Amino acid sequence: MSRAAIVLVGDELLTGTRVDTNGPWLARQLRELGVDVSEVRYVGDDAEQIADALLGCARRAARIFLTGGIGPTDDDVTRDGLARAAGRPLVENEDAWQIVDAKLRGRGREPGRGERRQALLPEGARVLVNEAGVAPGIRCDVGDATVFVFPGVPHELQMMFDSLRAEAEQWQAGTERATRTLWIAGIPESETAERIANIEELEGIDIASYPHTGELELVLYARGDGAAPRAAAAESAMRERLGAAVYDPVPGERIEHVVVRALTKRGASIATAESFTGGLLARMLTRVPGASAVFPIGWVTYAVEEKVARLGLDAALIAAHGVVSAETVAAMAEGALRTAGTDLALASTGAAGPDPIEEAGRSPVPPGRVCLALAQAGAETRILTLDLPFSRELVQRYAAVRAFDMVRRALARAAPPP
Amino acid sequence: MSRAAIVLVGDELLTGTRVDTNGPWLARQLRELGVDVSEVRYVGDDAEQIADALLGCARRAARIFLTGGIGPTDDDVTRDGLARAAGRPLVENEDAWQIVDAKLRGRGREPGRGERRQALLPEGARVLVNEAGVAPGIRCDVGDATVFVFPGVPHELQMMFDSLRAEAEQWQAGTERATRTLWIAGIPESETAERIANIEELEGIDIASYPHTGELELVLYARGDGAAPRAAAAESAMRERLGAAVYDPVPGERIEHVVVRALTKRGASIATAESFTGGLLARMLTRVPGASAVFPIGWVTYAVEEKVARLGLDAALIAAHGVVSAETVAAMAEGALRTAGTDLALASTGAAGPDPIEEAGRSPVPPGRVCLALAQAGAETRILTLDLPFSRELVQRYAAVRAFDMVRRALARAAPPP
Repeated sequence: MSRAAIVLVGDELLTGTRVDTNGPWLARQLRELGVDVSEVRYVGDDAEQIADALLGCARRAARIFLTGGIGPTDDDVTRDGLARAAGRPLVENEDAWQIVDAKLRGRGREPGRGERRQALLPEGARVLVNEAGVAPGIRCDVGDATVFVFPGVPHELQMMFDSLRAEAEQWQAGTERATRTLWIAGIPESETAERIANIEELEGIDIASYPHTGELELVLYARGDGAAPRAAAAESAMRERLGAAVYDPVPGERIEHVVVRALTKRGASIATAESFTGGLLARMLTRVPGASAVFPIGWVTYAVEEKVARLGLDAALIAAHGVVSAETVAAMAEGALRTAGTDLALASTGAAGPDPIEEAGRSPVPPGRVCLALAQAGAETRILTLDLPFSRELVQRYAAVRAFDMVRRALARAAPPP
Repeated sequence: MSRAAIVLVGDELLTGTRVDTNGPWLARQLRELGVDVSEVRYVGDDAEQIADALLGCARRAARIFLTGGIGPTDDDVTRDGLARAAGRPLVENEDAWQIVDAKLRGRGREPGRGERRQALLPEGARVLVNEAGVAPGIRCDVGDATVFVFPGVPHELQMMFDSLRAEAEQWQAGTERATRTLWIAGIPESETAERIANIEELEGIDIASYPHTGELELVLYARGDGAAPRAAAAESAMRERLGAAVYDPVPGERIEHVVVRALTKRGASIATAESFTGGLLARMLTRVPGASAVFPIGWVTYAVEEKVARLGLDAALIAAHGVVSAETVAAMAEGALRTAGTDLALASTGAAGPDPIEEAGRSPVPPGRVCLALAQAGAETRILTLDLPFSRELVQRYAAVRAFDMVRRALARAAPPP
């Protein structure tokens, strides 16, 4: 099987100025295309280093994917490095020139010296069309490897890579491939691992696990004869073992999108009453475009008195059971449901940490102890208590995902929408 | 000046399974130590590839920093790759063995075959002490370069690197170095660039800019003779030009921490009333440990009727000026201040996008139009209207930072705390 390498060009990648996402994005696309990546290199805006990286990678990889350094400024020396590695001179490429010239004139500008440089490609190289920007991509051989050069701007890179997909599907031609994806929430990762242990149908299937704080994305890769039916069999065996823990977000979306979609479909509304998640439940809902149709109101009642004043809790109940208790969180959810008049209400209380919560006359609440509740008109309030061995930020994020998972499961159990 | 390279080992780094943060972290530490990084390479758990990367980097770098692949499992082959690159056999290292043995026995376990492998180092290599975990780090020469091997677990890597700092300070000995950091908010990056243009004192000073959505971290690096006074002069010239836009968070903290600290110092409290930021203001406040002392209550009044019901807004005012207006946002902040009885109240309303907000009888509110207000007991309400050309998520995040910047500036203008 042919292998690939990734080269990312830019001084800013060598100073920690920002975390690169192009490398992981390309790596994942290639994996999904059945292409193994043998190495990833980050080099500065330096023609010699770029040439060196390309020659080094070409010894092992049949295809090299390079991003960055093809803009119009003097720092952009990827073309020079590529020409050096290919052992060919830079010459004006007619296709590239026409593209650059037309794009700039379309924006009412004359190409300057820098833009003219964007049309200089190694002799024999070809242009990769960049729908989203000016800089043309490049395809050029270095030794026995083919180098694909993309812009460093993520959405330009992604559009350009997408237009290569039809060809890329052929790279591993002759080898059947199939990919299946499952998302899992509401059970710990260790339980997921136990539940799918010893599934016969998983033999010969490669599983990649992408954890997303409380949500787990599992991707099954099958290669070789009968890949499609084998992947399908593995997937259905996994779904059987994992049951209601599995859900299916639209690609690029997450559990809060799944919840907002399900609420929208049913014409149902939700309110939030938060203590230790401190606005995170509301914030996750409102990340989803169109959330306003299902989410009229959320409270962040961080102080005990505000739980009483805004949600109508009985101060005596809080005193009797403590702020972090099943009783208090249930009363918060029910208070929010009653006050907002929504179909559902989600509530949280807990000790995010790092310190325990001290209440007079009670034993302290340890950091990581959280209580979640989901109240529904005409149904019993559901309560979940967890002890999470995480940092403050992770306790908040993990618990928020579990709270949305309660909503997801409740809606999935309910009658399907009309 | 001597250069460095970074090598990160792990199959999961080549599949896009997760975004690596060790590479950027190491790169930034090295930059702050005055060490230039010439390249960063990611390779799989494969001894030959590891050896190849080390030999390739050693041609250009005096020091190589490698993370990952030193655990006890059969996948952990960094030691083998290092030995191959160094051209030396793996031998049991007495120091390494004593460390592994003592750590495991301290946890009540006997070292197994895997742990015995952790004590096998290339002949002549030395141990780097790992305070936080079992796996010993390694220091070993490859060609003319020194290789430092760290665990891939971020906090183990960071502790181990920190214990090298005293030595690292000497790497560029003979060259004076100085670093100064400024944080800037409340003005666009382009305005920051204009304001600091032509500062004479910046000549010969290297500026790294680390953008954090609405907050900009600028780090000044001076090298060579008189580095310290030159950096100090550059810093004070920049502070003069940037004025109130500059602030000084504790390292690792952000603007919401600065605001919570300032409120705590003054014994002042704040409430939030959010529309398009949808809980993000509350969520940012409550990320800060100890926020409960200053933040009793936040509302996410996403629906118009909830602004009326919870914050006491006049429906006629909203109808007259529109939901996204200076009048409405000011009334939200003042309503929150009155209802919560806090010293300050922050409010937001706007069109996060992607769609415009349509209201009967009004022209639509374009995506990115946002209004922020800060109400204070006994002071005039401050209002800020912005048109932000960003995606939904960025509009929310950028505006939230600007809202906290309003609080930061108001507290800085007020009399210092007693």
